[in-house]
Amino acid sequence: MIIALDAMGGDTAPAVTVRGALEAVESFGLEVVLVGDEDRIRQELGSGRKVSGISIQHSSEVVAMDEPPASALRRKKDSSIRVAVDMVKSGKADAVVSAGNTGAAMATSFFRLGLVQGVGRPGIATVMPGVEKPFILIDVGATVDCKPVHLLQFAVMGNIYAGTVLGRANPRVGLLSIGEEAGKGNELTKESFKLLEDSRLNFAGNVEGKEIFSGTVDVVVCDGFTGNVVLKTAEGLVESLAQMFRQEIAKSMLGKIGYLFLQAGLPDVKKKLDYSEYGGAPLLGINGICIISHGRSTSKAIRNALRVAADSVEKGLKETIRTGIQEAMEEVFVAS
Amino acid sequence: MIIALDAMGGDTAPAVTVRGALEAVESFGLEVVLVGDEDRIRQELGSGRKVSGISIQHSSEVVAMDEPPASALRRKKDSSIRVAVDMVKSGKADAVVSAGNTGAAMATSFFRLGLVQGVGRPGIATVMPGVEKPFILIDVGATVDCKPVHLLQFAVMGNIYAGTVLGRANPRVGLLSIGEEAGKGNELTKESFKLLEDSRLNFAGNVEGKEIFSGTVDVVVCDGFTGNVVLKTAEGLVESLAQMFRQEIAKSMLGKIGYLFLQAGLPDVKKKLDYSEYGGAPLLGINGICIISHGRSTSKAIRNALRVAADSVEKGLKETIRTGIQEAMEEVFVAS
Repeated sequence: MIIALDAMGGDTAPAVTVRGALEAVESFGLEVVLVGDEDRIRQELGSGRKVSGISIQHSSEVVAMDEPPASALRRKKDSSIRVAVDMVKSGKADAVVSAGNTGAAMATSFFRLGLVQGVGRPGIATVMPGVEKPFILIDVGATVDCKPVHLLQFAVMGNIYAGTVLGRANPRVGLLSIGEEAGKGNELTKESFKLLEDSRLNFAGNVEGKEIFSGTVDVVVCDGFTGNVVLKTAEGLVESLAQMFRQEIAKSMLGKIGYLFLQAGLPDVKKKLDYSEYGGAPLLGINGICIISHGRSTSKAIRNALRVAADSVEKGLKETIRTGIQEAMEEVFVAS
Repeated sequence: MIIALDAMGGDTAPAVTVRGALEAVESFGLEVVLVGDEDRIRQELGSGRKVSGISIQHSSEVVAMDEPPASALRRKKDSSIRVAVDMVKSGKADAVVSAGNTGAAMATSFFRLGLVQGVGRPGIATVMPGVEKPFILIDVGATVDCKPVHLLQFAVMGNIYAGTVLGRANPRVGLLSIGEEAGKGNELTKESFKLLEDSRLNFAGNVEGKEIFSGTVDVVVCDGFTGNVVLKTAEGLVESLAQMFRQEIAKSMLGKIGYLFLQAGLPDVKKKLDYSEYGGAPLLGINGICIISHGRSTSKAIRNALRVAADSVEKGLKETIRTGIQEAMEEVFVAS
């Protein structure tokens, strides 16, 4: 199995991406193709050194982190993300991983690889931390304006992914809404509720933001706008709470002492909140395995994203999604 | 000034509501009418005791916390929330406060009082904690399916409310979206962006969930579905983080010791996160002052909700909103 890594993607690429690839090769025995500026990649690898499991595919251009995806796609035909995606298209790689410009990675994958047959819109599934166990949130930004059938399809894909990466059997799927009763929500969720209720999924009904972290469901389904807001609000709140605590701690001696003790005693909370454990989020529904990582990814995050990509290939994620979507759409067709 | 309090509304009503009213009368010299079952209210007040500033308006029915608002509105003509709202309608009270069934309080206020002239949809504005200072989030659930003009109106009303209750001069208004650039977002936010940009508001552009708590803007505008999800996700995350910490602390002696020191040193973080400081959220755009409080309100929250109601009346919130909306709509009309 060969994974193409967008070596130039990410805030500190290619230093972090090359290190992540080396760690993945060592830890999981993967074969990784580093796609990007050959000279700079060689520099990071160490001159003249030949590493087993690592190869380089040169590309002359880089999409900047803040570049508009549409223009990147149109103008930079030899960008690292495009060359990496095209390796999947041509069968030279089994999956692609990028920590670069998220919009560009999404758009390139979408336009170069297309969608799995039957899928209407792609969805990004991310693993979120929970008190008891992590859960999947889908979509977090691939499709911001959704129809009910898209939410049904996100549920089907999220359900499959929860089985693949989290190893959950018969995952409980919840619809993110603003009240637990079937009638609560906006037009989109009310219509989506009916489709989910009629599906073969283990549908737990509506779930609210206040309960998603407490482990009531394995998969939380929503449109890409709401999911992205939830993801970023959660990130922002955790950072802001940490900042509030640090400010107060700095003011008081008791606080400082307490903080020292607490830090020593709390490795597990940190681990639960550490996004790099999962490394990346797949763009599901695409006709190929594409894992999108945070621009601030550490080498550990890159390593784990490569592992998630390999897992997804090994477990036949693309084919399972094709079958799952086909079955779900047949049911919708029969019911209507 | 007279405030009508739905004495039967809330998880522990009328015990907490009566106590909150007594505290408000004592602290702020308000006149409060307790609306609800006279016998039960008298019992809470202490038999035979006549309290200056407190009066009772009997009502024979109560809307349960989980009762569908529509049926409550149709069937319970003598419910405490309805009688309280009708006191505002008839001019016997200047404002109404309820910690009861939120949907019923919204629907009753909407149908009995109507909207301020020019307002298309009502919006609930809630005060959220931030690292440096609190901010206003509007709408958090009154109008779940919005048009761009509704978001413009929420911005106008939130702007006015930020001046009224937070004392902010020329508040910075942000549009909640999923990227900072104008072109990022869903159909609703992209269209709303244009209206906000053309308005006289101090518009700061799009804001993301990750920055709202760090104090970049005073008012965050979104549709009621997204706002409610943000509010509940924030609530759920804070509770879940606290639970994660407690679980870990319980496991380790160092953690337990640290926690003791930290608790002593951190009163200000707790205060920042204490929603009862603001007590309640106004249903803005309604032709009357209506403050909605959390079902789990403490007496302190009820007291502060009564203060917010009194502030809103004193500062002419309703009239300021009427003028503000009229001006904003004239600009939209001229521009189009």
